[in-house]
Amino acid sequence: MKKVLIDCDPGIDDALALALAAGSPSLDIVGVTTVGGNVDLPLTTANALALREFLELGDVPVTPGSAGALMRETVRATRVHGTTGLGDVVLPAPVLGPADGHAVDFIVDALKSAPGEITLVAVGPLTNIALAVRREPRVVEWARELVIMGGSYTRGNHNPAAEFNMLADPEAAAIVFGAGWTVRMLGLDVTLTATITSGVLDRMRPLGRLADLLVPAAQFYGVVTAEGGPAIHDACAVAYVLDPALFTCVPAVVNVETAGQFTRGMTVTDFRVDPAEANALVATAMDVKGFWDLVLGAYERLAQRLG
Amino acid sequence: MKKVLIDCDPGIDDALALALAAGSPSLDIVGVTTVGGNVDLPLTTANALALREFLELGDVPVTPGSAGALMRETVRATRVHGTTGLGDVVLPAPVLGPADGHAVDFIVDALKSAPGEITLVAVGPLTNIALAVRREPRVVEWARELVIMGGSYTRGNHNPAAEFNMLADPEAAAIVFGAGWTVRMLGLDVTLTATITSGVLDRMRPLGRLADLLVPAAQFYGVVTAEGGPAIHDACAVAYVLDPALFTCVPAVVNVETAGQFTRGMTVTDFRVDPAEANALVATAMDVKGFWDLVLGAYERLAQRLG
Amino acid sequence: MKKVLIDCDPGIDDALALALAAGSPSLDIVGVTTVGGNVDLPLTTANALALREFLELGDVPVTPGSAGALMRETVRATRVHGTTGLGDVVLPAPVLGPADGHAVDFIVDALKSAPGEITLVAVGPLTNIALAVRREPRVVEWARELVIMGGSYTRGNHNPAAEFNMLADPEAAAIVFGAGWTVRMLGLDVTLTATITSGVLDRMRPLGRLADLLVPAAQFYGVVTAEGGPAIHDACAVAYVLDPALFTCVPAVVNVETAGQFTRGMTVTDFRVDPAEANALVATAMDVKGFWDLVLGAYERLAQRLG
Amino acid sequence: MKKVLIDCDPGIDDALALALAAGSPSLDIVGVTTVGGNVDLPLTTANALALREFLELGDVPVTPGSAGALMRETVRATRVHGTTGLGDVVLPAPVLGPADGHAVDFIVDALKSAPGEITLVAVGPLTNIALAVRREPRVVEWARELVIMGGSYTRGNHNPAAEFNMLADPEAAAIVFGAGWTVRMLGLDVTLTATITSGVLDRMRPLGRLADLLVPAAQFYGVVTAEGGPAIHDACAVAYVLDPALFTCVPAVVNVETAGQFTRGMTVTDFRVDPAEANALVATAMDVKGFWDLVLGAYERLAQRLG
Repeated sequence: MKKVLIDCDPGIDDALALALAAGSPSLDIVGVTTVGGNVDLPLTTANALALREFLELGDVPVTPGSAGALMRETVRATRVHGTTGLGDVVLPAPVLGPADGHAVDFIVDALKSAPGEITLVAVGPLTNIALAVRREPRVVEWARELVIMGGSYTRGNHNPAAEFNMLADPEAAAIVFGAGWTVRMLGLDVTLTATITSGVLDRMRPLGRLADLLVPAAQFYGVVTAEGGPAIHDACAVAYVLDPALFTCVPAVVNVETAGQFTRGMTVTDFRVDPAEANALVATAMDVKGFWDLVLGAYERLAQRLG
Repeated sequence: MKKVLIDCDPGIDDALALALAAGSPSLDIVGVTTVGGNVDLPLTTANALALREFLELGDVPVTPGSAGALMRETVRATRVHGTTGLGDVVLPAPVLGPADGHAVDFIVDALKSAPGEITLVAVGPLTNIALAVRREPRVVEWARELVIMGGSYTRGNHNPAAEFNMLADPEAAAIVFGAGWTVRMLGLDVTLTATITSGVLDRMRPLGRLADLLVPAAQFYGVVTAEGGPAIHDACAVAYVLDPALFTCVPAVVNVETAGQFTRGMTVTDFRVDPAEANALVATAMDVKGFWDLVLGAYERLAQRLG
Repeated sequence: MKKVLIDCDPGIDDALALALAAGSPSLDIVGVTTVGGNVDLPLTTANALALREFLELGDVPVTPGSAGALMRETVRATRVHGTTGLGDVVLPAPVLGPADGHAVDFIVDALKSAPGEITLVAVGPLTNIALAVRREPRVVEWARELVIMGGSYTRGNHNPAAEFNMLADPEAAAIVFGAGWTVRMLGLDVTLTATITSGVLDRMRPLGRLADLLVPAAQFYGVVTAEGGPAIHDACAVAYVLDPALFTCVPAVVNVETAGQFTRGMTVTDFRVDPAEANALVATAMDVKGFWDLVLGAYERLAQRLG
Repeated sequence: MKKVLIDCDPGIDDALALALAAGSPSLDIVGVTTVGGNVDLPLTTANALALREFLELGDVPVTPGSAGALMRETVRATRVHGTTGLGDVVLPAPVLGPADGHAVDFIVDALKSAPGEITLVAVGPLTNIALAVRREPRVVEWARELVIMGGSYTRGNHNPAAEFNMLADPEAAAIVFGAGWTVRMLGLDVTLTATITSGVLDRMRPLGRLADLLVPAAQFYGVVTAEGGPAIHDACAVAYVLDPALFTCVPAVVNVETAGQFTRGMTVTDFRVDPAEANALVATAMDVKGFWDLVLGAYERLAQRLG
């Protein structure tokens, strides 16, 4: 069992990533923390709470965190995720509320309580993680690994230079990449290959109640065709935890631009470095078929449980 | 009784500011938090602990906070404050240790427990305050007031543009000035008038054990003459809490430069604004005689207590 | 006879500076070049042409130069100088047109033709001077001196950090201050003391035709009282050429901020430097009475000539 | 006959680009201007002069221009081009010297004398072009087209973000891309496909005297194998003038980053724009075979002439 703490901003692909985790018996989700990102914090928290019950995650605590970026005006992706953050999907209202306390404290306390055991999976803006690092620098040692969905070494999505999660809080990203650990970076370079094609969608359709989430979410997220479709970015980070061998990763020095006029939030990635100086392992390729086998397998397992 | 929470980085003038607070019966010090600044965090914390006992502050908790700036390399002022932070002064080793927990949590919890009652006095880099604001935005409402020693609207001290506390963590300062409260800014423009002249020093000499702190601290801090001497910057912030009427304050919009090549940490102060849009009350003049009467009166009171 | 080449953007105080030069027999004006600044280039050029004839500068060539800044959007000061650049003053339409060619070439060629003889006086944005420096780096050696009106070491006028001429083209200013010469900087710190009081205005009123320019220009420029009034900034630079002893000047390293968010165009001035490393002589005080004696004496001389 | 004015910094690939132009009877080279870039200006000028005679360009004027960047410290590529700029190649010393005057004036005057006729081909840092634009904004209208080798929309070469020519003078590049024309941008995205393979090299070997330049230059420039080799970047810009159909070009808005900490000189390229708002046509693909047919054909023609 791998312990994971998932910091997220659901968000359609966050939902699909949580479903992947929920369907993966080898993962022990010690907590879910939320951050303002794709939509505002009250919505990402509400969505996380609804997903906890819909996906039957049990008593995993959901702890809300930072509403906005460290230094910047808020950037949202409602154009992509809809005004609620889950597209057209309407989940049953959750019965239980969030945990007391703040995500930053939850992260610090959880990692402190089990040094070397918990993998941090961060699939939204890195505000909570950065605050945890600054609040308690030892989280860097205590974390087993930090796996993020974010950045790219070629081109951005929110603008030509920057990926959304990094752009939404460039200073947080700069803090996180500079903190002393080796960030596992699953960026657009690979996540854009994780597309929901019509073949994938066809395998989601028979999944009962779970399909009621997966299918409309996917369809809201982008146009599905035989060759391509929307990319479920965040699921790649969970997939990496489940099976790193699906990804080709290369050591690199990643600097996050915070000063540029057109390049804020860009993850400037230098592969021509001594691996000993690398601050990141950057995914450069993904076994797409293997990825979908993993994801759809987990979804099928979960669907059996959910009915 | 005014409740104050003092965030500091002792630091010679921090020590003199704590002595002012200790000798002011109208102040209730609810806590002291420390930050890396003039010297490293272990030293500022050790100094705060030693001062708590030397000044007989009783059971005021001393809680250590942030070791370094949010985003920047560390800047120290050991040239000014000596390698220990207290010049040549050697205080008795403290018996008691710091409180458990972290300054940021202490600040959030203290303010939460007494909304509208506690004045935050911050006389070091604003790292702890900024993290508290981002960790719990409601501290801005809960604080009775935020009074800082820092910045200037004319020229800097550490370099031509920036005052040391702001330069040491420009991003934290930008967060704090942008948080929604009206920052009481006691900058170099007034604090440089709070100089320890030989006349002032002569009134410190007879103060018994307290003089063993005050006099060598002052003499280490700068050359004392009949007309001038070192400025005890941080004491101005405590003096402001005790008697705001000593200061002329003008509403202004203060923006902290974080992007400049030569101006990082500069508090760019615009007085030509609608007072309704001001984010700061900036001290522009000080009743120097009244200030010293207040400070030396408190020192005398404290000296009687300390023997 | 001191040879001067005046680069300007008339502009009310430019006009008053040109009148000072026109009334100073010890100056030999080898040329006037224009730049977009207070108002657009066509207007500054038209004003320079009208002034050449009104002030009877003879065959001094007027050569238009750069319309806009090297890198920035245009900033204008029509609020201060009126839409024409000369407030309410309407001068007779000039008979002669501008010289062929471009100010940058004129500057390069003039300096090249008389190495060590010509003092460059620049009282607008430094665009032309910067382009001349980059077009022909030897102008730095060929110029006898560069005297500018611009910058400040305390506070700005256009915004809290920057003086207008520097803000209007920060990159040009950075190039000029970095070019290797010792810039004579007459900044707001002194020029704001060169105010047209009612006493000064009373000495302008009897000056015949010249008064038709001086008096309404001054009155448009600001409110004249017994104690103060508008500052004729640009005239200070010409006065410096005529009598440097009127000014206290201190060696400094001046860096022009080009990267700041709130501080672009600020002349960050460090006086705590080895004079051998200074790139500027910065005026810190002015003999105001001596200044006005010089200026009004020149105006009286000129008025006699103009009738 | 297409008239071209070639601004360059030879440089190995500049030399190969000039050889392409020399062997192309449909081009009329109206002038060569030089700029400091790959190596210092005296060397780029000396190389241009030597190449003029070696390639028998006749009386084409060679006019030296800017030695350094507008605002930045000098960056050189001697690691790539050798200390002389031409690798191991030693050309006969030129008999004739450079033209009088400055490249910026030459560019302005040439374009002014033949509005709409001359294509500017710039294959070095854009310092001269930027100064020409600021010195005389109408060059933008007078130029038939501006074709540059520089930039990229994916990754840099000198660092992860920036291509060398853009990095060497980011402010110049920003001026040029913002000047109002549609820059034809041949960036690394295509030029890196223009590699000298061993097949290409084999076709260069028999070219007599010309081979004495081409072959060692290519071999110094990089390792030649059957599949790949060094890319002759600059020749792509000349090839574009000769046959634009070899390139796929897409309208884009290109912004040059000048403020970034890690991204200075990056050509941030946005293809998701209204073509009417594009400031560039960016090459995204090249017919490599067609390119080499064009280039080698020209080389063969030239070789016959040179013997």
